[in-house]
Amino acid sequence: MSKPINICEIFGPTIQGEGAQIGRPTVFVRTAGCDYRCSWCDTLYAVDTAHANDWRKVMAADVMAEIEQLSQNTPMSVTLSGGNPAMQPLGELIELGQEKGYDFSMETQGSLARDWFSKLDNLTLSPKPPSSGIETDWSLFKDCVEAAGSKTNISLKIVIFDEADYKYAQLAAKLFPQLPLYLQAGNHMVDDQSDADIDGVLERLRWLAEKVAQDRWQKACVLPQLHVLAWGNKRAA
Amino acid sequence: MSKPINICEIFGPTIQGEGAQIGRPTVFVRTAGCDYRCSWCDTLYAVDTAHANDWRKVMAADVMAEIEQLSQNTPMSVTLSGGNPAMQPLGELIELGQEKGYDFSMETQGSLARDWFSKLDNLTLSPKPPSSGIETDWSLFKDCVEAAGSKTNISLKIVIFDEADYKYAQLAAKLFPQLPLYLQAGNHMVDDQSDADIDGVLERLRWLAEKVAQDRWQKACVLPQLHVLAWGNKRAA
Repeated sequence: MSKPINICEIFGPTIQGEGAQIGRPTVFVRTAGCDYRCSWCDTLYAVDTAHANDWRKVMAADVMAEIEQLSQNTPMSVTLSGGNPAMQPLGELIELGQEKGYDFSMETQGSLARDWFSKLDNLTLSPKPPSSGIETDWSLFKDCVEAAGSKTNISLKIVIFDEADYKYAQLAAKLFPQLPLYLQAGNHMVDDQSDADIDGVLERLRWLAEKVAQDRWQKACVLPQLHVLAWGNKRAA
Repeated sequence: MSKPINICEIFGPTIQGEGAQIGRPTVFVRTAGCDYRCSWCDTLYAVDTAHANDWRKVMAADVMAEIEQLSQNTPMSVTLSGGNPAMQPLGELIELGQEKGYDFSMETQGSLARDWFSKLDNLTLSPKPPSSGIETDWSLFKDCVEAAGSKTNISLKIVIFDEADYKYAQLAAKLFPQLPLYLQAGNHMVDDQSDADIDGVLERLRWLAEKVAQDRWQKACVLPQLHVLAWGNKRAA
């Protein structure tokens, strides 16, 4: 029996703003609910149960129908995000979409391993650094890497606000040397009711880029969040 | 007999700001001289012979020594840029560096094919759209693709200012469907004596991202120039 997916929003096509798929057109499926509560969470409306009235339970086939409508039936990239999408039963949606030529990327923090990770085309594992206020369980994280297996493109993406986050990223890179590594300059003003501090975001990008270059950290790839630069903190339509 | 390389500047490590290697630490070797004169050229100091007094002829081994000094002998990525680096004899430098574990990326407009393109690890071919004022000879461009062969990672990068540039990119994508495609939001204020117009650059990024998303152009990857966002139009030290 298939189970419904807890959906916060489905929107797009737009551009993926972050990580390995940066700059690529995609439709977003944002699931509701999260086992984390990061201090700088930029999608509290998908995390905080105070917003639960805006969430809806949708069967995989109906989610796929919405994706097809948004993409005008053009097979394209679908990004599963959250909240933590690993909390939802997404295997059936991935299968349905892939049969129709869509490909699936997902981002999750790496706290819950699911066997359907191995069906994904791209999996971004985004462990949360000290500034989030969350402690990483690297053993659970390793389970996620193993669940995805070798067919899925896995990458690490780590948000960096400060020196402690940077050190954490160095540790993560040491623990998982086989995974491509993206360092994302953090956004410190995430309230969708106020303007993003673009100058502040770019200053952090500059700081991070100079640090990585200075350290000759060849493995690291330094990126901003394109959607924040282009659209600020506004939620997509 | 090896020939000297006409060098404008060697600097880094810094972050590659554009295209397929965006965000990655690299040392830049900027060669002097160009067969093009694009209306919005952002490196006139490497192109305009009025600056020739600042250029210097350096043998490949000496260029490599400078790279090793900047990288503190850590094998890393080297980016060959210009001007048009295809005007220079770079095959020996690439071989010397690769023997020491460095990898080589190059960006050129695709107007001059060289057999040493096949030694490169990454080749960005950046044909110039109508807003540049230059007309593309697609036959010469094709020679460049063929010179690089199948071992080198080749990608297309096209600067976009307006609708005509966008149409040109669609044509390029049709002519070379096998090549990954990066669309770069253009920088309209390139004078290194004045501040970059970050708002204007981000507005063009937003326009381009929305256009590609609207067109569901799955192949395109929309990117800004990170170095302009982080450092403005300032030349690197």
